[in-house]
Amino acid sequence: MPTLYHHPMSSSSRFVRLILTEYGYQTELIEEQTWEKRRDFLALNPAGTLPVYVDDSMRALCGASVISEYLDETHGVLKRDRRLLAEDPFQRAEIRRLTEWFMQKMEQDVTRPLTRERVFKLQMTAEQGGGAPDSKVMRMARGNIRQHMKYLSWLAGSRQWLAGERLSYADLAAAASVSVLDYLGEIDWTESPVAKEWYQRLKSRPSFRPILAERVRGVTPVSHYADLDF
Amino acid sequence: MPTLYHHPMSSSSRFVRLILTEYGYQTELIEEQTWEKRRDFLALNPAGTLPVYVDDSMRALCGASVISEYLDETHGVLKRDRRLLAEDPFQRAEIRRLTEWFMQKMEQDVTRPLTRERVFKLQMTAEQGGGAPDSKVMRMARGNIRQHMKYLSWLAGSRQWLAGERLSYADLAAAASVSVLDYLGEIDWTESPVAKEWYQRLKSRPSFRPILAERVRGVTPVSHYADLDF
Repeated sequence: MPTLYHHPMSSSSRFVRLILTEYGYQTELIEEQTWEKRRDFLALNPAGTLPVYVDDSMRALCGASVISEYLDETHGVLKRDRRLLAEDPFQRAEIRRLTEWFMQKMEQDVTRPLTRERVFKLQMTAEQGGGAPDSKVMRMARGNIRQHMKYLSWLAGSRQWLAGERLSYADLAAAASVSVLDYLGEIDWTESPVAKEWYQRLKSRPSFRPILAERVRGVTPVSHYADLDF
Repeated sequence: MPTLYHHPMSSSSRFVRLILTEYGYQTELIEEQTWEKRRDFLALNPAGTLPVYVDDSMRALCGASVISEYLDETHGVLKRDRRLLAEDPFQRAEIRRLTEWFMQKMEQDVTRPLTRERVFKLQMTAEQGGGAPDSKVMRMARGNIRQHMKYLSWLAGSRQWLAGERLSYADLAAAASVSVLDYLGEIDWTESPVAKEWYQRLKSRPSFRPILAERVRGVTPVSHYADLDF
């Protein structure tokens, strides 16, 4: 069985897990603490980042973008109207643009600083960079949430799914980031009713179930986290 | 004719220009100062980043990764042994992993901070974030160059081209970043003879000529910048 190195609070790991489950793929999950810089893990991915997918021939694929393109080429292409990346090159470009938006821009502006300060630093030793959260970093990241939720709301309000008429990687990428932030209680849903309706649809998919059931040591999720009607 | 919004010191812009020229595509180039946050430019790309490719039907493609995948799907696929992304999914994954390494990891660790401090801040107003370069940021970025050059040397020494037996996006991405740093005199070639031999091969390609001929206002390139025997 292929293996996925992941972390429950890594949005790009969640994104790949959602793709795998949507396509009905079974993988063995191994939780990796990237800050430990394990030698064996760095041999798989010299960049030291998550997720990493290792197939049955022990070949490693590194990073959500590489893995999602590979899964489209090897599996998505056979799924017809359940394919998560479109057929048309321009439609594919729009899906990739939005996937990148959530996996890279929102990650950099919001998700990475907040998870680092609120989750990962609790688990790191002082040498690894652990310690008390930096309130300045958190304030900046929180200040960026509203703009991202506005853009998400605009997309969700003007299209059936974020990138067009079909569920795509863009929805799974956005939902992966949003779900991490929602675990931490960082999203004020009263401000974003349109995004909320979209997220309810995503959250209700069977592929989301295992993710909503997971808990991270030392960090309790917000009370509505796993509720489908929140 | 399609249009490419770019900046001469943006490595991801150089990467896309190299692809377009390798494939024999003519585009009109428009230099964009992203820090000006022009309304019309943000309408094309809400992320405000370069490069942006606008086709003859005025459809915009945003970012090097989206553009390069689109160019592979619409043009590369017809190029047979001159295709810059392989046929085999695993080989494609390796090319994408390395392209991402140079366009994102090296960009974040080295190229973005150094170009920002040494080039862009000179052209920005104080309001836009301009001013004197931050020596601490430059010291950190310079400290990261050696590790990236080591990895590049290892790849160049163990394979014919960076991702395998054929010239690929990985080579163009790496050469795009390296050429920006070389313009600024940031690379000590005596330390990396294997990478140097690889870069000489890249630099000698006709696709590199227009890039080597360009000069940025207020920043003189290192004397060997455009020499093919440096």
